[in-house]
Amino acid sequence: MVIMKKEVVDEIERIVGKERYSTEIADLYVYGFDASIHHKTPDAVVRPATAEQVSEIVKLANRTLTPIVPRGAGTAMCGHTVPLKGGIILDLTAMTKIKEMRVEDLYCVVEPGVIYDTLNAELGKHGFWFPTTPGSAEACTIGGMVATNASGMRAIKYGATRDYVLGLEVVLPTGEIIHTGTRTLKNSSGYQLDRLMVGSEGTLGVITEVTLRFAVKPRASAMTVAAFNSLVDAGRCVSNIIAKPLLPSAIELMDSVTIKAVNKCMNVGLPDCEAICMIEVDGHPAAVEEEMKMVEEISRKSGAFSTEASSDKKKINEWTQARKAILPSLSRYGDEFVSVALADDMSVPISKIPEAVAAFQKIAEENGVIVGTYGHSADGNLHTKMLVEPYSEESWKSGEKAVGQIYDKVLELGGTVTGEHGVSITKAPYMQKERRDSIGAMKAIKKALDPNDIMNPGKIFDWEGSIISHLRYPAFLDRRCGCSSDCEEG
Amino acid sequence: MVIMKKEVVDEIERIVGKERYSTEIADLYVYGFDASIHHKTPDAVVRPATAEQVSEIVKLANRTLTPIVPRGAGTAMCGHTVPLKGGIILDLTAMTKIKEMRVEDLYCVVEPGVIYDTLNAELGKHGFWFPTTPGSAEACTIGGMVATNASGMRAIKYGATRDYVLGLEVVLPTGEIIHTGTRTLKNSSGYQLDRLMVGSEGTLGVITEVTLRFAVKPRASAMTVAAFNSLVDAGRCVSNIIAKPLLPSAIELMDSVTIKAVNKCMNVGLPDCEAICMIEVDGHPAAVEEEMKMVEEISRKSGAFSTEASSDKKKINEWTQARKAILPSLSRYGDEFVSVALADDMSVPISKIPEAVAAFQKIAEENGVIVGTYGHSADGNLHTKMLVEPYSEESWKSGEKAVGQIYDKVLELGGTVTGEHGVSITKAPYMQKERRDSIGAMKAIKKALDPNDIMNPGKIFDWEGSIISHLRYPAFLDRRCGCSSDCEEG
Repeated sequence: MVIMKKEVVDEIERIVGKERYSTEIADLYVYGFDASIHHKTPDAVVRPATAEQVSEIVKLANRTLTPIVPRGAGTAMCGHTVPLKGGIILDLTAMTKIKEMRVEDLYCVVEPGVIYDTLNAELGKHGFWFPTTPGSAEACTIGGMVATNASGMRAIKYGATRDYVLGLEVVLPTGEIIHTGTRTLKNSSGYQLDRLMVGSEGTLGVITEVTLRFAVKPRASAMTVAAFNSLVDAGRCVSNIIAKPLLPSAIELMDSVTIKAVNKCMNVGLPDCEAICMIEVDGHPAAVEEEMKMVEEISRKSGAFSTEASSDKKKINEWTQARKAILPSLSRYGDEFVSVALADDMSVPISKIPEAVAAFQKIAEENGVIVGTYGHSADGNLHTKMLVEPYSEESWKSGEKAVGQIYDKVLELGGTVTGEHGVSITKAPYMQKERRDSIGAMKAIKKALDPNDIMNPGKIFDWEGSIISHLRYPAFLDRRCGCSSDCEEG
Repeated sequence: MVIMKKEVVDEIERIVGKERYSTEIADLYVYGFDASIHHKTPDAVVRPATAEQVSEIVKLANRTLTPIVPRGAGTAMCGHTVPLKGGIILDLTAMTKIKEMRVEDLYCVVEPGVIYDTLNAELGKHGFWFPTTPGSAEACTIGGMVATNASGMRAIKYGATRDYVLGLEVVLPTGEIIHTGTRTLKNSSGYQLDRLMVGSEGTLGVITEVTLRFAVKPRASAMTVAAFNSLVDAGRCVSNIIAKPLLPSAIELMDSVTIKAVNKCMNVGLPDCEAICMIEVDGHPAAVEEEMKMVEEISRKSGAFSTEASSDKKKINEWTQARKAILPSLSRYGDEFVSVALADDMSVPISKIPEAVAAFQKIAEENGVIVGTYGHSADGNLHTKMLVEPYSEESWKSGEKAVGQIYDKVLELGGTVTGEHGVSITKAPYMQKERRDSIGAMKAIKKALDPNDIMNPGKIFDWEGSIISHLRYPAFLDRRCGCSSDCEEG
């Protein structure tokens, strides 16, 4: 590992003070992880308190050509906050102020470290919410959500993070502090730089303030659990609902692998079958009542053998918790497996879900891997989690092969390799296929704004090689690293 | 005027054929206008039929350093399609195909020349709509709406064009054809280049295809006309409704100047008073009924001396037509005046509307100009139209002075100089104030993607000098042109 020069460390201390940085090996090790399969140790962790401190640190990084990686709660699934080339981790979780709550103007201004659920608790007091509902709602930060254009189960009706960002304060790779967007609900005032920053994964700057619009909280909601003997029928049910037209607030699809995993871990008694759809509608109570009936009818016509509907909050919460339990439950599927985010959040056009899920099942079978398929199917977003034996190279290789085939199918169906998690490392080779003709423009913009390539370098369009590299699983990591870049584990 | 070289014209003819271009002076003169106060004659007009033709023409322009300006219906208010440096006008109105209508996937794919109302007629057959509702709905093209991030009266509830663009096909300034975004409802797959292209006003490329999501058409709607003795009270009513919380689909504000103008031209009998709010709610019939009552109550509490509500489609249409008649009505306010788009579509945070409109009135008075104020007040978007004596230099100068003061106030209130029309020429000096710290980043991106500066050059961040230049009013234009750039009218 490259040890950071003393002059750089001294300068960091001068900028943020003794308490706000660390070069202790234990700290560095921990900050080398996020929720992905990757790991790499940084040279320093800095925890700034203000945009001015961020600016100073970025200027230092730019001057000394030190890589710098912004980080929120570290819930990213694809390696976003793993410092591939070492350098500084900029931990933004100390910046947690809700600076303005302008209810009558339909916007708020927050620091990047504010947690999604915390913000929603505050908004809820006034009858509003930020409805994107990511799976990591209890932990993830607004800054991280902006950096990845995160969303979740309610994107079909309420959109993704990009649809709520009105403005940003950003520290550019040169250290300049700029303000993009506005505090108004719309603007046509020059390039929409805020929208470019959304989803740029810490490669174009550090987000130090977010102006977000919000939505009026619906007065009522209801959920229907529809059970199917065929995953394809469940997929078809989703597009039949949309084409009605009926806009649900969420449709969560679960296949038999995920149902089994959840039923094993939780006492919620999901129907033991090939697939279920959890269909949520919300809005005015009269609308909810009508739409519940429509949902039941469409589900039955689409092949559901049973439907159970409820507008009882406790029941809905129980089902929602079961859905949320998929990820940890899959990790307990069998002692030999870990559930890993490889091909984990592709999106396809809604009507292509049946074909997609059927193909995923076939690919899993052919490669001898276990794949749990679930997801926010109303907006075509499917999560597949692969169960891998972490210390078996063969198991990883089979997984990687299946991943490649899954993404080829997704692209063939007109889909995208990532609906809400982002690219970083784990999706990079596949995103490069998807974006073949626009990568040149992305690189040109990156070079224009970050000429020294200090911001989260080596990822997205700059990643080369296998995704099974920089792995967090030491036994395998010790033996080899698939990375083709300048990596001492290479 | 610079006459285009014969070799370039010959090459244009080779690419698109004899029928698809013109260098006739009458054609060129007409294509020098849009709906702004500006005019400048191009050297050629080309009307391509395909993205490949666009690509070839752009390559030719890039090779020969010929400026090129994409154009839709020419309804832009700020000079977007006025070819400031001559060159080629690329008229995209021949590209009118609706290429895909994917109801079950909630998206459609259209060519840039499709007209907003035409698309909505098609969507309506399936129970959907693209609800942004620009004032020029009957004429404006989807490509133009994307290029300006256009919106309209329903942005408060339904957002602006940027919120509906899922993907774009764009011909870059180098002539490369790229595809941005996806055909899925969300994506986190690399930089959101589609969102950057939205609102870039033809300076970063030519949009040759748009993938749009759409919304479910509401089942019912109702409108309330609330009349006030004070413009400030009317403004306050708007933020009281939002803070309730109650999300209307539109609130149109009209001041006494606009009410008088409309009543003079149309037989709709709007209350003759200081201000009215036309408040529209839509959704489920039960919700609409409840919200109508809430709207009436809040309006009265905010100082309305009368309210009239209706859910009758004929009545709502009559009111809507009266609202739509503001612009032409203002032009008939007095024979000596024309109504011009100078400071015409600023937005402020909703709660700042009372202060904004009071300030606009005072500024108009102090400068001896007549200003009609109206607009989509629910999202803070105010339109001011100035009544100018077109052949009086003094009248223009007073107007320009008032404009500067109006925008200073808007920026002081945390607003933006343009909510939905864009920058181009007429807003450029004021936008440069608003975006002082981010213009460098915009220029860097422009240079990265358009190194030869061929796409719609000389505007937005590159505009210098007075906005009262390149005027379309010949008598004044003959005498002088305030432009500081290399202009033979200078």
